[in-house]
Amino acid sequence: MPYSLRFLPGDVTVKVEHGDNLLTAAARAGIYIQALCGGEGLCGKCQVHIDQGRVHSGSTAGLSAEEIDQGLRLACTATIGSDCVVTIPGQAGEDGQGLGSQPKTTRAISAGAADRIILPWSVRPPIRKLYVELPPPSLTDNIADTERLLRALKQLAPERQPPQYDHPELIRELPHILREAAWQVTLILLECLDSGAGERIIAVEPGDTRAQFYGLALDLGTTTLSGVLIDLNSGEVIAEASRYNAQVSYGEDVIARIIYSQKTGGQRLLQEKIVASINAIIEEVCRRVIISPSDISLIIAAGNTVMAHLLLGIDPRYIRQAPYVPAVGDFPLSKAAPLGILAHPSVRLFLYPCVAAYVGGDIVAGVHACRIHRTKKITLFIDIGTNGEIVIGNRDWLVCAACSAGPAFEGGGIRYGMRAGTGAIEDIHIHPGTLQPMIITIGNTNPRGICGSGLIALVAELLAAGIINRRGKFITDRKDPRIRRSADGWGYILVHSHDTGIGEDIVITEVDLDNLIRTKGAMFAGYQTLLDYVGLRFADLDQVILAGNFGAHIDLERAIAIGLLPDIDRNTFHYLGNASLLGCQISLTDRERFGDRRAVSSLMTHLELSDNQSFMHAYMAALFLPHTDLSLFPSAIATEASHRIKLFP
Amino acid sequence: MPYSLRFLPGDVTVKVEHGDNLLTAAARAGIYIQALCGGEGLCGKCQVHIDQGRVHSGSTAGLSAEEIDQGLRLACTATIGSDCVVTIPGQAGEDGQGLGSQPKTTRAISAGAADRIILPWSVRPPIRKLYVELPPPSLTDNIADTERLLRALKQLAPERQPPQYDHPELIRELPHILREAAWQVTLILLECLDSGAGERIIAVEPGDTRAQFYGLALDLGTTTLSGVLIDLNSGEVIAEASRYNAQVSYGEDVIARIIYSQKTGGQRLLQEKIVASINAIIEEVCRRVIISPSDISLIIAAGNTVMAHLLLGIDPRYIRQAPYVPAVGDFPLSKAAPLGILAHPSVRLFLYPCVAAYVGGDIVAGVHACRIHRTKKITLFIDIGTNGEIVIGNRDWLVCAACSAGPAFEGGGIRYGMRAGTGAIEDIHIHPGTLQPMIITIGNTNPRGICGSGLIALVAELLAAGIINRRGKFITDRKDPRIRRSADGWGYILVHSHDTGIGEDIVITEVDLDNLIRTKGAMFAGYQTLLDYVGLRFADLDQVILAGNFGAHIDLERAIAIGLLPDIDRNTFHYLGNASLLGCQISLTDRERFGDRRAVSSLMTHLELSDNQSFMHAYMAALFLPHTDLSLFPSAIATEASHRIKLFP
Repeated sequence: MPYSLRFLPGDVTVKVEHGDNLLTAAARAGIYIQALCGGEGLCGKCQVHIDQGRVHSGSTAGLSAEEIDQGLRLACTATIGSDCVVTIPGQAGEDGQGLGSQPKTTRAISAGAADRIILPWSVRPPIRKLYVELPPPSLTDNIADTERLLRALKQLAPERQPPQYDHPELIRELPHILREAAWQVTLILLECLDSGAGERIIAVEPGDTRAQFYGLALDLGTTTLSGVLIDLNSGEVIAEASRYNAQVSYGEDVIARIIYSQKTGGQRLLQEKIVASINAIIEEVCRRVIISPSDISLIIAAGNTVMAHLLLGIDPRYIRQAPYVPAVGDFPLSKAAPLGILAHPSVRLFLYPCVAAYVGGDIVAGVHACRIHRTKKITLFIDIGTNGEIVIGNRDWLVCAACSAGPAFEGGGIRYGMRAGTGAIEDIHIHPGTLQPMIITIGNTNPRGICGSGLIALVAELLAAGIINRRGKFITDRKDPRIRRSADGWGYILVHSHDTGIGEDIVITEVDLDNLIRTKGAMFAGYQTLLDYVGLRFADLDQVILAGNFGAHIDLERAIAIGLLPDIDRNTFHYLGNASLLGCQISLTDRERFGDRRAVSSLMTHLELSDNQSFMHAYMAALFLPHTDLSLFPSAIATEASHRIKLFP
Repeated sequence: MPYSLRFLPGDVTVKVEHGDNLLTAAARAGIYIQALCGGEGLCGKCQVHIDQGRVHSGSTAGLSAEEIDQGLRLACTATIGSDCVVTIPGQAGEDGQGLGSQPKTTRAISAGAADRIILPWSVRPPIRKLYVELPPPSLTDNIADTERLLRALKQLAPERQPPQYDHPELIRELPHILREAAWQVTLILLECLDSGAGERIIAVEPGDTRAQFYGLALDLGTTTLSGVLIDLNSGEVIAEASRYNAQVSYGEDVIARIIYSQKTGGQRLLQEKIVASINAIIEEVCRRVIISPSDISLIIAAGNTVMAHLLLGIDPRYIRQAPYVPAVGDFPLSKAAPLGILAHPSVRLFLYPCVAAYVGGDIVAGVHACRIHRTKKITLFIDIGTNGEIVIGNRDWLVCAACSAGPAFEGGGIRYGMRAGTGAIEDIHIHPGTLQPMIITIGNTNPRGICGSGLIALVAELLAAGIINRRGKFITDRKDPRIRRSADGWGYILVHSHDTGIGEDIVITEVDLDNLIRTKGAMFAGYQTLLDYVGLRFADLDQVILAGNFGAHIDLERAIAIGLLPDIDRNTFHYLGNASLLGCQISLTDRERFGDRRAVSSLMTHLELSDNQSFMHAYMAALFLPHTDLSLFPSAIATEASHRIKLFP
């Protein structure tokens, strides 16, 4: 049951959960509190007065006993234990209202519509277990063991196409299994990939093993691998695990991995590393539910083109060289064990096909999950990661592109950028008057850097506070001590060294801003180019789906404010999380949906942007906050107008 | 151009070829010449007088200069160089005719009808090479390499089902091959085994390699492996080779091999041995036409059930134990290289399916070759080898059985039995008056033992000469020095030790005769049981096809005389040689015929004889020469009548 939390003097009331951090709750409500150190009470600036209710304080460093008695607490260390009323001291403006108390953001992108987009799926996996009791052979019935098995299947389902059963390894063990199991065995039948090719017997297990029936869905990210273990009898997720991709030590992005793969032994090593990460996930999910890795019967995975090539041991070198050609689009259904994966020898690994060098199976799986290929709604699907991938279309057509956005929003190329993790600044508000920041870190601890959502917030706040202009350059006539010039040019000191966890100032410079603007510009140019290609405008979009981990924390208003997302009806935006993993999970569980996957890649037309003049023009026009063409961003015009009134009366 | 060879005093004229051996020619003509040592002039008994014409003498040992001047020669060392007239001295009987000069045998079983039975086949192999020139990728056309290849195939044949192309190894090498070959490659496409499944790309070769296109047909015998290399462009056999099965050291017959396979490491060793023999054949045929083993694109093989199991590394143990169940009937299409076979990694090995434990792929291939499943003629197909296999039927039905005949006619269980090879006695005539033998050895050299055709001849001659009775027992009242009693009971000394190549007498005993009678009895009981099973009689047979090496040298009249073959119209008998190898060869060359193979095993019903009471009764009745029921052997009644007149007037 949520508590009610009321902030004064702004008089804003929000719902919070038991144990929520007070500073974070304020940030989410759009309430500004000066908070310079991100947590742990180091700076002692985020004092609040608890008027009513119960809060728990982790640390009261910086507060005197008297202040504590008076009801003062540090917001960054306070967690909420009841309905509360909290006053933020010294924050009343001329009008008696708290500055910045009007919520500037609607942080949460609609997730409520996700179910309507994805639709429920059935529990009828593309693999099945079938228990059969065979009549033992006799002199009057002494057909071969394989024929006895196939005959029993024919008798069970005369109308069904006989399954394929042609693997020497399977046949080698069959006679022993049949006799040890007294002719009572469980078959594992895998639906063949080619429609109409029926099923294939991939394993014969002694006795009745139907109760143990599991599948693994895997998302093979460049940085992170995520897996979910599914009970294929119930369709339920029974364990989850994530691991860093152990390839990370050999290169941050796919280009670096391709380069490393060209060294002697490099490709093999990268293959072993991704397999080691997969195996760590398999071990973890199996340990959690106390099953053996050999109880997993099928693995369905999705990864970008380079990850898939490396996993299968296919040289990715031509992906990197113009004209950027993958070796393979439709990946072969492979046995997992020969790749080194901890799996029963019979287990197959299905990898979603890639569409192009930089539009991989993860995108196909994501589109497959959210059924863009089955809706009449014109949909924009966005995955902002190391590389931005975009798909536009509906059930009639799909166009896709990768827009070389770069990893800026993952912290790449940003001096104090970092991935979302403990100590990453994930939310920032800047007081438009004092230019003092309010920072929120993941784990409410001392900041170590800024993650993607923090960077979006920061750029938006710097712009809103008038610290930078629309070109991303500092307005230096403010003469604020937080704005200073260094070797990297002008910058804004977000956290002073004594308040950080790294012993140096956390600063954002014009070089960083330039990188971020290029990245968001490439994404936006991508949307525009694809829309132009199909003769549509932003207004024609019926839904926008954000996929990937990054999407989870995007602050919609701010992302639009800096031009990373289009300025259209906020209700069209939906966040789907790890859509790639979701696609794998759906395919593992529902053979109808699995069969339907082919429609995605066959509908999809890839547009190469690296050589595309329209894209280059759109990109140049997008190197502005939010854009050179403000008619595309009506909200920005409105905001600017309201700011002018407030800040420059 | 054949020569005319006239024998006196019998006045029998036969056609011979230049260089034919005089003794062999006489034997084939049914002319008796006393010949005790089989060749090399050792015994000096086979003197003949050359009345006219030119003969070449290899040795004149045992002849004086005077005798040579008089025109005497040793028949065993004489070869014919022109039309000749030859008198056999001291052989005129009371009637002035040479004794035994009436041809007793029509040795050659009709081979003329073979072409009519097999029918010509097309040169359209189940595998094909396809040369394609792909457009190189560009920024506006940068689909994956695999998709580029498949797109090109689609453009070449839009109506054709796209081939399967799903082997990771192939895809791994594709990008490199395509670029090294400047996008001009030759595909090898294999017709899938499952009808309707289309083709599969099994290899991609740089450049245009269509001219090099070879296949290997292999017969995997328990004793001997035979292979023919076929140019798949022309369909012609371009090289042949045979090798002993290197498994022979580990057991003479399949039962012994199964027993050996159960020892530690035994199965693996037997697998390695048969593979070594296959590799020796591959090396030999390739050396002969100067190609590389990796130029062979497909191997089609047939072997009995045990050979096929051992080759594929499948435990054959349950074949030997009642109820005699093979692990697998339809063998999986396997890659050859992983089995150890000297072949390109892409090469598939197709093995004809087995029908039962002792009715193997060799029989199926043989029946497939001679199209019994497509003729309306009721056909008896016989393969007498280590184990006798029988098939009866036509296009509507096929029944088959193995009759545990034993290897007696391959020399197994016969004291001086041996396989057909240099020094093996392959033909025997016994003078009904003197009881002296006329022996013909393979290679016209000193005898070392008796092979199958020799054994048939020997039993028939012993019976015809009144040396043994119809139960295979010696009639000891003749008191001839060649008939003597030893530890093995009564026996007939065929060659005295000084005339042999082994330094001991070559003798046939009652123990040997018993074995031979059991074997021929089992075969005959097999024919009878299968015919009874389908409600037919011998007279209903439209054709009898003899397959296997053994069939090549069977003396039809004598085989009938001892009851090994049924006593029916001689024109129904056809000899097809290695029908199993022929089936493989046809399948390699003609995809229609290859596709038709499934009809054979699906039509075939196996009858287990080991537990069959009808078979046991028929077997007991057949332990007689030729049979207890002489009504089945009208020829025997006639022969006996004529013998009585001649020998016991």
